[in-house]
Amino acid sequence: MANEKMVKAITSMDEDFAKWYTDIVAKAELMDYSSVKGCMIIRPYGYAIWENIQKTLDGMFKETGHENVCMPMFIPESLLQKEKDHVEGFAPEVAWVTHGGNEKLEERLCVRPTSETLFCDHYANIIQSYRDLPKLYNQWCSVVRWEKTTRPFLRSREFLWQEGHTIHATAEEAQAETVRMLETYARFAEEYLAIPVVKGVKTEKERFAGAADTYTIEALMHDGKALQSATSHYFGDGFARAFNIQFTDKDNKLAYPFQTSWGCTTRLIGAVIMTHGDNDGLVLPPAIAPIQTVLIPIAAHKEGVVEKANEVYERLCKVCRAKIDLSEQSPGWKFAEYEMKGVPLRVELGPKDIEKNQCVIVRRDNRQKYFVSLDDLESEIARLLVEVRDSMLEAARNRRDSMTYVAHDLDEMIKIADEKPGFIKAMWCGDRECEDALKEKAGVTSRCIPLEQEHIGDTCVCCGKKADKMLYWGKAY
Amino acid sequence: MANEKMVKAITSMDEDFAKWYTDIVAKAELMDYSSVKGCMIIRPYGYAIWENIQKTLDGMFKETGHENVCMPMFIPESLLQKEKDHVEGFAPEVAWVTHGGNEKLEERLCVRPTSETLFCDHYANIIQSYRDLPKLYNQWCSVVRWEKTTRPFLRSREFLWQEGHTIHATAEEAQAETVRMLETYARFAEEYLAIPVVKGVKTEKERFAGAADTYTIEALMHDGKALQSATSHYFGDGFARAFNIQFTDKDNKLAYPFQTSWGCTTRLIGAVIMTHGDNDGLVLPPAIAPIQTVLIPIAAHKEGVVEKANEVYERLCKVCRAKIDLSEQSPGWKFAEYEMKGVPLRVELGPKDIEKNQCVIVRRDNRQKYFVSLDDLESEIARLLVEVRDSMLEAARNRRDSMTYVAHDLDEMIKIADEKPGFIKAMWCGDRECEDALKEKAGVTSRCIPLEQEHIGDTCVCCGKKADKMLYWGKAY
Repeated sequence: MANEKMVKAITSMDEDFAKWYTDIVAKAELMDYSSVKGCMIIRPYGYAIWENIQKTLDGMFKETGHENVCMPMFIPESLLQKEKDHVEGFAPEVAWVTHGGNEKLEERLCVRPTSETLFCDHYANIIQSYRDLPKLYNQWCSVVRWEKTTRPFLRSREFLWQEGHTIHATAEEAQAETVRMLETYARFAEEYLAIPVVKGVKTEKERFAGAADTYTIEALMHDGKALQSATSHYFGDGFARAFNIQFTDKDNKLAYPFQTSWGCTTRLIGAVIMTHGDNDGLVLPPAIAPIQTVLIPIAAHKEGVVEKANEVYERLCKVCRAKIDLSEQSPGWKFAEYEMKGVPLRVELGPKDIEKNQCVIVRRDNRQKYFVSLDDLESEIARLLVEVRDSMLEAARNRRDSMTYVAHDLDEMIKIADEKPGFIKAMWCGDRECEDALKEKAGVTSRCIPLEQEHIGDTCVCCGKKADKMLYWGKAY
Repeated sequence: MANEKMVKAITSMDEDFAKWYTDIVAKAELMDYSSVKGCMIIRPYGYAIWENIQKTLDGMFKETGHENVCMPMFIPESLLQKEKDHVEGFAPEVAWVTHGGNEKLEERLCVRPTSETLFCDHYANIIQSYRDLPKLYNQWCSVVRWEKTTRPFLRSREFLWQEGHTIHATAEEAQAETVRMLETYARFAEEYLAIPVVKGVKTEKERFAGAADTYTIEALMHDGKALQSATSHYFGDGFARAFNIQFTDKDNKLAYPFQTSWGCTTRLIGAVIMTHGDNDGLVLPPAIAPIQTVLIPIAAHKEGVVEKANEVYERLCKVCRAKIDLSEQSPGWKFAEYEMKGVPLRVELGPKDIEKNQCVIVRRDNRQKYFVSLDDLESEIARLLVEVRDSMLEAARNRRDSMTYVAHDLDEMIKIADEKPGFIKAMWCGDRECEDALKEKAGVTSRCIPLEQEHIGDTCVCCGKKADKMLYWGKAY
């Protein structure tokens, strides 16, 4: 069958990891390429994953008191230029609007690459007194960065994200917010995406343009490359000074407030694919799977099968996001199709099962098969969905740990970086020169200074001088 | 008190309707002006209204089998030009991106004013057989149209909307979809926004660029001006031919599919303001109100009041979107504040109420006051929220009907248009010349040919020739 062949034709990840990845995003119908160079189309199945991510994160943000707003998508050039480091970082990679209809604009506008400048402009307008603080804002939107090389979900010229922007009366409060949101992302990654992450701080070199500190969660992909999965920035009062945002404090004095921003993107879908996927396709964590359980009738032409299947399907709908596939394709084709799409649980129901008042449940993550009495259907589905998530997280953590190495000196670092894909833990003296040298000689970048420090030595892996910081290093997306 | 004065200071709608409107959007904190000319900032309270609209409509779309997708925000110039009428309609009002970073683009891109061309480009890629049809897609995003004059929510250069795009094997199916979505919008407007609408078809002059038919729902604002509140377009196979989208039908022949698109925007928030608002501010229909019930304690310094108020608040939270205001402002200030914000129900609770095991509930829409036993709190709140919506719809419908006139000839039309703001029903022969003449002489445009026709005469209101179509005419936003 032509279709059957099509579904199966994905490159093995050992053969060509990049090809395996692009095969999955296309064949699982997550995205399509568009006529707009470097921009992609997110198809219904891919977008439904994003909607689930969005819904959960939005709930977490609202629980912590954040409110959604909507800023313009354009930034006037003069506004972008107000904060020196920020404009240096972003100006080279923005898209410029120069004409409206047939008229040339007096001032060109960039399509937002991020919205700090717009939020600051608004804050200057609405904040007068300490009573107006804090403002805990977030927005869901798309942003544009004119990247040279792009890959679906991982790096594209336009991408979907959320960007939180908060402003506080004190530095302590803003710092606490920065860490709180980092923790929110880490919890979301582990609990909902089943992706273990390292929480840490970026070195000055890797900081967000304009930030005083950038926090990050770093995940390790199947191929041993790191993926920065969300970031949280502390700005101090740098932006407030650049935009002249001032407020009257409790002592009736004018003061500058302190700011943060934090974001995550559709890149998380790439992280899910490259953390959990296998050679048969996607493997989705139940919390974000558009379909959590697919029911496939066996020998559907036999009397009573479709009827019973529909009855079971109704029951499934009450406990999870369920689908029934009554199409004319063979069960084998359907198995392959929903494996490709990463559906966590497959329920098979045939004449023999019906006779025995049972169904067969097969897990996508580890292929384990269960014969389940229909009397226990709901409780077993609920139990298995939790178990799948737990196993996926454990498997990902074990793999990550088994691909995490320690280097004590430059030779060791180069050898590991050369031979063993993964994270490398190593001490660092704090000098930018050593960071640059490691990039040049070992091809690795600093991923983060983890919040949980370990003592693995006292000297810099590069220069051999005294060092008290342990970092994660690696090749990264 | 300075604050009290600020809240009260809105222009009366009889004095200056336009000023009344902009006062409300600013003072109810729905929006703020931005440094980007013609673009606005939607503030948390305004955005929460949009989120409620979005959530409800999205649920209705999904119930009817629609799936969300995400298209790029840019359209290459060559793609925009593929359908002749479409490009003529939109090219004069798009924003053009000409540079990415420091490089001039080979082909300039417009920021989408609407996405028919992008959807067609994608359909051509994914549709081969009748088995691939229909595709029922929708996307939530913002679009840009370079308007000369702008007004918050009603007309801005960037606005939020949803755009549904569907493609079908037959003309009949696509036509049915066009009408089905019109009905969906009408139901949403009446049930959730309490806005009565006229459903109809646009004349050729008022059609969407590229459409074979445009359906519309038209609402009447407080000032007698019409507001086009949502549209649904039938495209025939025009776009399919322009983009060469073909499929193999059941007889194994190549055929062109048929398309629709339909959309509504943040303009609906403008419709809510101008349908229900009064001289004290917003009046929100409960279904989309970010806060449905606000609890204001009276004499909060007295023993037991705050405690009891918190207890009542907990109960309110279980049946509606509730807020408690324990701030130091006076009850009078709070009353004005939440009236400005259009909160449907206010619950007052003071020492005397507590003694009597009661609370006072005041409706925003008609100021009616109820003394409610705390034993009946939940059921009374639920009942009143329904009643508020029903009364609001009825009041709006009565006002609309009382502002709807009939004209039989040109003199009458001119006189009514001059003296009486509102809808004018009149017969039309179908000639574009008469339509243009009515615009020129009476200052009215055709709003729609209502689906529910009435017989009010047999001759055209303009030329006096035979006419069999009754139209709604009026001045419009």
